[in-house]
Order: sequence, then structure tokens, then C-alpha cells
Amino acid sequence: MLTLLLAEAAIELIPKKIWRHPSVLKHAKRRGKKAGAILLDRSYHHSAMKDLKNAYKRGRPDITHLSLLIALGTPLNKNGLLKTYIQTRDEYIIHVNHKIRLPKNYIQFTGLIEQLYELGRVPKQGTPLLELKKHSLQDLFRIKDESYVVTLMKDGEPKTLDTLINTLIKKKNPVVVIGAFPHGRFSKDIIDISDESVSIYSETLEAWTVTSRVIYEYEKALFNL
Amino acid sequence: MLTLLLAEAAIELIPKKIWRHPSVLKHAKRRGKKAGAILLDRSYHHSAMKDLKNAYKRGRPDITHLSLLIALGTPLNKNGLLKTYIQTRDEYIIHVNHKIRLPKNYIQFTGLIEQLYELGRVPKQGTPLLELKKHSLQDLFRIKDESYVVTLMKDGEPKTLDTLINTLIKKKNPVVVIGAFPHGRFSKDIIDISDESVSIYSETLEAWTVTSRVIYEYEKALFNL
Repeated sequence: MLTLLLAEAAIELIPKKIWRHPSVLKHAKRRGKKAGAILLDRSYHHSAMKDLKNAYKRGRPDITHLSLLIALGTPLNKNGLLKTYIQTRDEYIIHVNHKIRLPKNYIQFTGLIEQLYELGRVPKQGTPLLELKKHSLQDLFRIKDESYVVTLMKDGEPKTLDTLINTLIKKKNPVVVIGAFPHGRFSKDIIDISDESVSIYSETLEAWTVTSRVIYEYEKALFNL
Repeated sequence: MLTLLLAEAAIELIPKKIWRHPSVLKHAKRRGKKAGAILLDRSYHHSAMKDLKNAYKRGRPDITHLSLLIALGTPLNKNGLLKTYIQTRDEYIIHVNHKIRLPKNYIQFTGLIEQLYELGRVPKQGTPLLELKKHSLQDLFRIKDESYVVTLMKDGEPKTLDTLINTLIKKKNPVVVIGAFPHGRFSKDIIDISDESVSIYSETLEAWTVTSRVIYEYEKALFNL
């Protein structure tokens, strides 16, 4: 079993500070929703975002959408051997049921995440496919101290992905952390829970590319391909 | 240099037959465009699509969007070692400049492709980033007969991806064909241009998963990783 954490995902509801910005008001009106119930998205709120702190790391739910689609479609996930979490910008942890059929359409995906923020889970009844929980990463990976957490970042220790996976596969509860934000570095929280920080390529790779490659190598190691 | 063909991509303008369907009219009005200038998309035109032949293979530009994003973000592409073509449902070939910065947002992507259908190229002036051409696959891969074309499909000859790539890497002009449609089989045209049909997994994999894995293994073989 491999655990994947899409960390510091650029997902959050539009913060109060920019609810009254004209571009936000216009978009909210078109959506027929309150600004505070809509996901922040640079495609629609670019001009409003200049008033936000650390804006370069925010408003990109598409990164999580693509990375999740990639992860959930893999044979590893379909065989129930991948556990996926998303840590959002506003400090929730989304627990992803591996059986979810994620909307391929981006608008439907953001609608689903907005529903998740509203209800705390989707669907409203029955087995949850997504759950939004407020707890720390320490709770998730550190309480029993059995996890081995590797965070992938450009400035980490250079290793080939094969080498890394061959170490991981021997661990009891391996966790791979991939940043799901557009620019910048991981926060201290992530560094604190990491046993290792590894760089698999000399330049920044997109979250979905890293997600895909990690899972593929893990499958190869696990199934002896 | 590897050539990637996203084949029979579920991309086409809304066909005349369903222009007057209520769901199409409504969507066209909202977009402020004529129905015939909008991409067919199952997310919006589901109810209208039941009147179309082979509807199960059509109306999914998102498959191409994701597969392209995956392909263009790879180190192979960024190093100028990947050439990408898209064969559309309505028999155009889209020539993709490897330097294009593809919109990550799906709505912006479909807008770009609609512009491509209108103008035949984008941007309108300067070096083309996308070109829409009407010619056959034979013209592309067979005129000089130097290509080695491998089509990936569930019913092909089972091979590990490593084995396949180790063959491909020795060819002068290797071409990998990946289906960018949601269901069904390749048409005879694709089979006719293929030197080999290969299955890399016992079940259907999504186009973007296959795209990612092929390019990754090719990089590993090329760069001796």
C-alpha cells in the first residue's frame, strides 16, 4: 500500500478579503452562488488575487484535479493499493475513497469540491467518496509513528526514482508527498513531517507528472515488472 | 526523437445534425457563439448526442487536453525530443509546436481549439503553435516509409513497456499511437499504418496514463536512467 499526499494544494474557498472585488462579484453572479462558496481560481479571479498574500501559491484547483485523475486511474489505485489525501491551502485534509469516479470535466470537479466544503462529505449520504476533515498531518502520519514520509522537491537530495522506490517498497507505511501548488516552496509543516526530501529531476516537474511517475515505478517494483 | 500521435481524438465541432437540439441551442446562446463553432462536449451536449452515430467515441476534448498537458510537461518534450500530433474525429491533423504553453484551464483549452478550427492556426500571426491540417496519416508517416509505428491497444500483443521501448529506441523514426477517445476500438485506418499493435496492460488504461508512461520509459532509455 502506498499513501499519496497532494500537499498544500492550491484549493480554498474565495477568501473574504476579495469577496467584493468586481471580478469576484461578476463570477459569483454568473455562478448563482455566494463568493464565499466558490473555489478560488486564477482563471476567473486573477485581477482580484493581487490583493492576496502568497497569491503565487494559490487558486489552482486544476493542479489537484489533474493529479487526482492521474492517480485514481492507475492500476495501483484500481487494485486498492493506493491511499490518497489532499491537504488544502486552508488546512483541511480531504480523504479520498479510492473507488470515487472523479468528474473528468473541470467545472464539474470544482462543483464537487464546493459541495464538499458545504457538506463536509460527498455524497451527502451512504459511503463517503470525499471527506473534508480538520486535523493535522501529524495526526495522519505521525501518531503511531509507523509512516515513512518522503517529500519530493527540486531542492531535495538527488536520487533516481528507481532508487527511491526501491527504498520505499520495503517500508511498512510509505508516504509520498507531492506539492500541488503552482510556485514556491513547501511550508515548514511539510518539512517537519518528512523523513527524507528527495529530488528526482534537476528542474521543477508538474505535480501530475511526478504523481504519474511515482505510482508507475511503485507498481513496477510491487508487481515485479 | 519520439513521435506521439493522439489518434481518433474525440474532438470535433458540433455536427449540423444536432445544431437545433435544445441543449445545444442553450449552450451556444450562453457561449455567445454559433453551434457550429463550438466543440462537441458530452458534459454539455449529452442529451443531444444520442442522435449521433458512434456517440460513445465522441465529444471528449478533455481526454486530449489532459494527455497533451502530460506530454508537453515532460523533460523529453522540454528538451525538444518529442513531436506531437493529434488526429481529430473529423479527420484533421493538429500539428503541435512543442514550445506551446497549453492552457491548464479546460474552458480556455476548448476556446483555443475552437479558434484553431476558425483560423486554421493559432496564433493568427507569427510562429504557429497549433496548426490544423487536412491530410492523411499516410502522408505523415508513410510517404518516406521511415517511420516505425506502434499502436497501443488492449487487444494488441502483450509486452512490457520496457521491452517495447527498448525496441523503439533503436528505430530511426519511432511513432507511438495512443487512442484519445473514451470507448471502442481503433478504426481500420490506424491499424493500416501500424507496424505493431501492442498491449502494455491487461485492461484499458486512460490515454493520459499511457502517454505519461510511454514518455517516461522513453526518457529512461534515452538518457540511460
